[in-house]
Amino acid sequence: MISTNMQEQVKNSSIIRAMFEEGKRLAKIYGAENVYDFSLGNPSVEPPEEVRKAIIEIVNQENAISIHGYMNNSGYEDVRTAIAASINNKFGTDFTHNNIVMTVGAAGGLNVIFKTLLNPQDEVIVFAPFFGEYRSYVKNYEGKLIVVAPNIVDFQPNLAEFKAKITPKTKAVIINSPNNPTGVIYSEETITKLSEILREKQKEFGTEIYIISDEPYRELAYEQAEVPYLTKYYDNTIVGYSFSKSLSLPGERIGYLVIPDQATDHEDIIAAANIATRILGFVNAPSLFQRVIAKCLDAKVDLETYNRNRELLYNELSTYGYGCIKPEGAFYLFVKTPIEDDIEFCNLAKKKNILVVPGTAFSCPGYMRIAYCVAYETIKKSLPGFKALIDEVK
Amino acid sequence: MISTNMQEQVKNSSIIRAMFEEGKRLAKIYGAENVYDFSLGNPSVEPPEEVRKAIIEIVNQENAISIHGYMNNSGYEDVRTAIAASINNKFGTDFTHNNIVMTVGAAGGLNVIFKTLLNPQDEVIVFAPFFGEYRSYVKNYEGKLIVVAPNIVDFQPNLAEFKAKITPKTKAVIINSPNNPTGVIYSEETITKLSEILREKQKEFGTEIYIISDEPYRELAYEQAEVPYLTKYYDNTIVGYSFSKSLSLPGERIGYLVIPDQATDHEDIIAAANIATRILGFVNAPSLFQRVIAKCLDAKVDLETYNRNRELLYNELSTYGYGCIKPEGAFYLFVKTPIEDDIEFCNLAKKKNILVVPGTAFSCPGYMRIAYCVAYETIKKSLPGFKALIDEVK
Repeated sequence: MISTNMQEQVKNSSIIRAMFEEGKRLAKIYGAENVYDFSLGNPSVEPPEEVRKAIIEIVNQENAISIHGYMNNSGYEDVRTAIAASINNKFGTDFTHNNIVMTVGAAGGLNVIFKTLLNPQDEVIVFAPFFGEYRSYVKNYEGKLIVVAPNIVDFQPNLAEFKAKITPKTKAVIINSPNNPTGVIYSEETITKLSEILREKQKEFGTEIYIISDEPYRELAYEQAEVPYLTKYYDNTIVGYSFSKSLSLPGERIGYLVIPDQATDHEDIIAAANIATRILGFVNAPSLFQRVIAKCLDAKVDLETYNRNRELLYNELSTYGYGCIKPEGAFYLFVKTPIEDDIEFCNLAKKKNILVVPGTAFSCPGYMRIAYCVAYETIKKSLPGFKALIDEVK
Repeated sequence: MISTNMQEQVKNSSIIRAMFEEGKRLAKIYGAENVYDFSLGNPSVEPPEEVRKAIIEIVNQENAISIHGYMNNSGYEDVRTAIAASINNKFGTDFTHNNIVMTVGAAGGLNVIFKTLLNPQDEVIVFAPFFGEYRSYVKNYEGKLIVVAPNIVDFQPNLAEFKAKITPKTKAVIINSPNNPTGVIYSEETITKLSEILREKQKEFGTEIYIISDEPYRELAYEQAEVPYLTKYYDNTIVGYSFSKSLSLPGERIGYLVIPDQATDHEDIIAAANIATRILGFVNAPSLFQRVIAKCLDAKVDLETYNRNRELLYNELSTYGYGCIKPEGAFYLFVKTPIEDDIEFCNLAKKKNILVVPGTAFSCPGYMRIAYCVAYETIKKSLPGFKALIDEVK
């Protein structure tokens, strides 16, 4: 009795989430300490202490009706002002609260912006490998996902293929940097060239093409790597941000969209995003956490913990003979599977209680994603398993 | 550049929300104390003290990673178990955590269930007057809203018209009791007859028709009025609940769906609702507030405050000559406008700084909704305005 669309979805349900459930099942059998679950991007580093303090301060000092009540669908004006100021301070932009729409995480924000922009059959370009959920988000609004094949040399986008795939139906391009699943940061050179191509194509077709910059991993950049702020390179850029990873609050569903005045039809987009927030049933981003993050805009999770994991995993796996490029950001290592069939390899790994996600889930077969947002000990204890796996198949 | 669909939405944006913004504008000019804003169902009674205590207890005692982290898309299992037990205790049902899907408020829950059930052109029946957002929720999934005209005698649903409007394309019926905007509780007799009609029609057409019981006002029933629990009357019932009003937490976006084992294809519906929660971008109901409400399932807002407002407003407006039936629940009074054109009348009211919503917004022209979730003083001070208004037009 469920809809045809959802019947299909139930059948092909997220591999990542299925792994998450599988991990919990194995943990019950073998004990959590003997299962090496690298399947989910669930932060392993505690939220900064500022978060707890902010929560307590707010509920003890502010009016309960207003901290838990309705506000404008775009969010509290003072919170949006604080966010705009923080972005301006970091990137030299000139946003006001009008440019900010608070969202139920980045996933909520992406749904809001696709609802706002897409007509049926509009095309949205993504660069493989990419977060598989984009497929569903675009499909929700009957958009058509156009995949640019992976550039397996360095996982910067393949810009020649990108250029060839832009059509008069292209409405948006998703950029996700630092990238899930590769951990690669798209370089300033990439962004500059990509923007140039988009400007050319806009002119050629007389259309507007929006970059949707999905940035949940912006703050997770190692060795002070620069992550270009895309609104500075391309006017029709809309940013989707989330505090899920930057403050380790993925369950709280708090993020925002930035819709700059430089974007064509920005007033309509802002008005529509406000309405989309309401009618999709979000209504508003959770109210207490809007106020909490406004007090924590300068707080940071301990990046060094992820960095230690990154170094250990990258160095050891490279030594064993796995092919991987060192991630510059996020908390994922994207590794070539020693056998071609990545799903088969991930099943072999599961037999050693190692849970990793096949690259196929990211439209990049022959690879696997290892989410290293886990305890250091978990990585250490998993290493013999990783070694045995490659030795067995080589 | 926004989608055709959203262009239309921007044009016809919610009257209620527009009023809310108008109220804030007038408050800036005349001072908040001189504006009588009855436009929005934003609780005026403080959340129970248990909420603040639960928040502090949880953030001080529980592990920060797990209280703010991802969990199953349907929500924490222990929270869902607690909710199931609480419902079972109150209504003699036999739900388990499997029957509960935590949602981003009732609006989120309704979107999840419509995404789950509706194929394009499937029909969803509503009884006027009804919450205008239902129109958008159904449209989001290309369903067709079928409106049963209001029964202005007592605002119980018109069951003869209902029966005549059920077709082989009917997939769902929305029940909202206590009702927004009338405050009427659908009687046991209504529910019994309505269920009987649905069973007949299911048999006649060989289809499944689901009742979607939207219950944000369940706990707001005056004088111990009984609100029938619909799963006990009709197997294909799905309940959408919210803590927005029962605990005065509308901004926190926390609620749940109940999908009973008695509902046809319940396993598929549960699986699909879980996935819909994810792909629509909710991902999960806000995590801290899942844990908070689990500790507050027996807590209640002070209903007597709303009751005093109800008595004052109903008694005075009736005395002035307004036609209204006394609400049994929720915090709305639905009043016949003294002139036929309800929009015109609400504009006249605005000139007296009284903000009320025309019945047209609820598909019931000739009426207005007064949300009395405001300070008692606000009602008192607004009364001369209400009196002057009816005197002027009579």
